[in-house]
Amino acid sequence: MRSREVPVDTSRSRVVDITERLEAFVAGGGDGLLNVLALHATAGLALMESGSGSEADLVAALERLLPRDDRYAHRHGSPGHGADHLLPVLVGPALTLPVVAGELVLGTWQRVVLVDLNADNPARRVRLDLLAG
Amino acid sequence: MRSREVPVDTSRSRVVDITERLEAFVAGGGDGLLNVLALHATAGLALMESGSGSEADLVAALERLLPRDDRYAHRHGSPGHGADHLLPVLVGPALTLPVVAGELVLGTWQRVVLVDLNADNPARRVRLDLLAG
Amino acid sequence: MRSREVPVDTSRSRVVDITERLEAFVAGGGDGLLNVLALHATAGLALMESGSGSEADLVAALERLLPRDDRYAHRHGSPGHGADHLLPVLVGPALTLPVVAGELVLGTWQRVVLVDLNADNPARRVRLDLLAG
Repeated sequence: MRSREVPVDTSRSRVVDITERLEAFVAGGGDGLLNVLALHATAGLALMESGSGSEADLVAALERLLPRDDRYAHRHGSPGHGADHLLPVLVGPALTLPVVAGELVLGTWQRVVLVDLNADNPARRVRLDLLAG
Repeated sequence: MRSREVPVDTSRSRVVDITERLEAFVAGGGDGLLNVLALHATAGLALMESGSGSEADLVAALERLLPRDDRYAHRHGSPGHGADHLLPVLVGPALTLPVVAGELVLGTWQRVVLVDLNADNPARRVRLDLLAG
Repeated sequence: MRSREVPVDTSRSRVVDITERLEAFVAGGGDGLLNVLALHATAGLALMESGSGSEADLVAALERLLPRDDRYAHRHGSPGHGADHLLPVLVGPALTLPVVAGELVLGTWQRVVLVDLNADNPARRVRLDLLAG
């Protein structure tokens, strides 16, 4: 198994397209399964179209589904931070994708994005593990 | 790694049981992990009971959680299509399952279903990759 | 591939931390990908912080997102049980995680939890499959 940890900066956007980071990691190799894991308890990974407005739609939908208010038992961090801790239950932080001949397999409009509504910490880490086969 | 792409027709139902397609693909082989990937930006995969009404319940729940109206920044396609582009964030299109002695391992009532509320395109493709081990 | 099935008792909590069970299974081995599968049609697996109140927050959020009332077409089991059958669509029962030198790789606050709001059956089974690499 081959591994890499990549830093992701979420200070400019709550939804960051990391597809090129994954493609760079698997390039030049053979076939296998790529496991992607956001190493945080308030972040998730999604496969979605990026660059057509869905990032803003996603942030709005998540803030509606998981309102950032004082209802939460989890009270560490900023007000409403309890909502951030439920995000990875709905948007899981672990994802496995096929790699063929050193290329990540995705549908035409699919991109891998990191989703993190937690503004307290913009320095995020994503781990990549490729199991060759 | 052994791969296959299977077509799935969603014209008669928004939730299509594809378990038998997966079972046919892994039959006769050994052990490994099966990766399943819906190659679309508006589709997801779920593990659920099928044939007991939950398909209709799921469509109703998703239309409530992601209303099909004009709130979305993503404005390509039919009205409300922005909702379709959030579906794969809640219902991820990638799934990995164990295979033992050429048989897919599932709980008694678990089935693999393709979920796609996007009526614009009923011709869908699901990719199967089996990493033997 | 190496496999184990572990029983999980959900009678005392709807959200049960099973991380130590996974760690015990992979201990002493090498590298690989660990597939975790809850073998039930009303259970899910999540990666979240545990022990800080988020378990109760999660139960409250799921009961709000999937109300336990008589709206469901699926009518087997207790009243509102149709909601339980939608839970695994939002909180998927299959999860794949990296293992390095016999240790499960997780972020500092990440724990693996079984989520099951179905009070009808507290005896649950989770399957573990490790594909070495």
